[in-house]
Amino acid sequence: MRYAIGVDVGGTNIVCGLVDEDGNIVVQRKYPTAANEGPQAILVKIGKTIEQLIEETGISREQCIAVGMGIPGLVDPVQGVSMRAVNLNWRDIPVASRLSELIGKPVYIDNDVRMYVYGEAVAGAGRGYDYVYGVTIGTGLASAFVQHGSLHYGHRYISGEIGHVPIEHVDFPCNCGRIGCLETIVSATGIARQARDRIAKGESSLLQEWFPNPADISASAVSKASDDGDVMAQDVLAQTGKTFARALAWAVPLLSPDAIVIGGGGALAGEALFTPIRQELDRLLLQDYIGQFVIKPAELNDHAGIIGSALWALKCSDV
Amino acid sequence: MRYAIGVDVGGTNIVCGLVDEDGNIVVQRKYPTAANEGPQAILVKIGKTIEQLIEETGISREQCIAVGMGIPGLVDPVQGVSMRAVNLNWRDIPVASRLSELIGKPVYIDNDVRMYVYGEAVAGAGRGYDYVYGVTIGTGLASAFVQHGSLHYGHRYISGEIGHVPIEHVDFPCNCGRIGCLETIVSATGIARQARDRIAKGESSLLQEWFPNPADISASAVSKASDDGDVMAQDVLAQTGKTFARALAWAVPLLSPDAIVIGGGGALAGEALFTPIRQELDRLLLQDYIGQFVIKPAELNDHAGIIGSALWALKCSDV
Repeated sequence: MRYAIGVDVGGTNIVCGLVDEDGNIVVQRKYPTAANEGPQAILVKIGKTIEQLIEETGISREQCIAVGMGIPGLVDPVQGVSMRAVNLNWRDIPVASRLSELIGKPVYIDNDVRMYVYGEAVAGAGRGYDYVYGVTIGTGLASAFVQHGSLHYGHRYISGEIGHVPIEHVDFPCNCGRIGCLETIVSATGIARQARDRIAKGESSLLQEWFPNPADISASAVSKASDDGDVMAQDVLAQTGKTFARALAWAVPLLSPDAIVIGGGGALAGEALFTPIRQELDRLLLQDYIGQFVIKPAELNDHAGIIGSALWALKCSDV
Repeated sequence: MRYAIGVDVGGTNIVCGLVDEDGNIVVQRKYPTAANEGPQAILVKIGKTIEQLIEETGISREQCIAVGMGIPGLVDPVQGVSMRAVNLNWRDIPVASRLSELIGKPVYIDNDVRMYVYGEAVAGAGRGYDYVYGVTIGTGLASAFVQHGSLHYGHRYISGEIGHVPIEHVDFPCNCGRIGCLETIVSATGIARQARDRIAKGESSLLQEWFPNPADISASAVSKASDDGDVMAQDVLAQTGKTFARALAWAVPLLSPDAIVIGGGGALAGEALFTPIRQELDRLLLQDYIGQFVIKPAELNDHAGIIGSALWALKCSDV
């Protein structure tokens, strides 16, 4: 059996996992990122963690073929450079070569959403499909496309950032400095924001009783209220799904996926979100596309990143 | 020098051309399709035309390696079957094998827009770019994507049909039976339709003087009026460009092209259409994507289809 290490570097936590070639996590570690200590300290700690994982498992050092790592922001996977990761305060850090020097294994890095979607495509909800379009509905919204087991990059490796297309009639300010971007609605943050906005405008909801301070409302609380029959929460999720369908109405003809996999915290709303997406897509799409793809929730969830990174590293090592 | 035949099958005309491996047309023939005579008669005539072209040119039969053919509608390029071509009244016709039997050469077929965009990508405006997104603004609107010289197909080979995504606030009826599809605005037909609609609503334009019968207004007449300083015609093209930018605002993050090539009759409007597209995209796109691609008019125009088909056939023969 061959193994690889998958590393998911987030602004808050880092997760390292030893993964076998079938996509099973053998052992994993999670610890705070400590971004303020700088990239070299972070990489040294990742290197040590990797050595520990290999030792603990008792596999031979040779059986661990490579390391894959998902990093937020802009990544040049060919040069192995993290070009820009705002939350980590990284800019043009040659992550792959530095970590590789530390541990003596080949290191492959990529954008974290790509690694997540790759994991879902080959070992999760997209397994068995040829053209998997994967989306994560988290703090923001991002996506990636895997065809026949290969990732789509596009020019400068920047494809997938669909969260910042402005949507008509939406006027929430976005983190990017513009107004009405898709992710101001379709994200965990966006779901909570819509609920707060509607309560502020006088609508009534269970969420008011649960949260005296509306700032405490989260996407998962909206899902919970929806499950409990709260009409406003249900409508927030329905509007989120309908808005998301407008983005998918372009993704489907442009990419023609046979599977759309939706993950991230926002996707935990389940059918309250998925049913409106499907209904709206049936209205928006040309007949030829209807019934040609499935829409599925992610299956690996929090593990998709490390599984995807590890399997991607194994694939890259084979070439 | 190697050669291939490119065939562009349209609802009105068929064009056959003998093309060298550098993408130059040596000789070509154009004749009416006569769709009512049925597929076999059409293929027999194409076969005879191909033999004539080879004979006329004086190249040896062996130097002509293969035949490529672009066909409207749904095509299965792997099986070589025209699955549905409404204007030709074809359904599940095994075009490649039938024509190959007639002429004793390998035949590769594909959707006509894909062959057009492939031609532009490798021998026209997209030459030298890695990720070419090509669009034809003709009677309808369709697109294709070529990355590193390979066509993107997607599931069931149906990617590219962006003309039928409904656009908010547009209420023209579409040929597909629905309302407000992108191509009711962004197409040669759509440009003429908008001009007629605005005249009917009381706006004044040079086009009224030129065309006592508004039904005679064409997209090229709108371009001409725009060039002559007609404010309404200029605004029709500006609105068309702005509407098209809303589609490209999704295509850019999903595909991340380094070149967008726009062809077809509607693209002949030139900068009157292109400038509003660029301006609106600068407003709609995330900063990371701005300045990362060019928008160019097609260069091969009417010849893109046969050049693309012929070069595609040569490429397929190499594998």
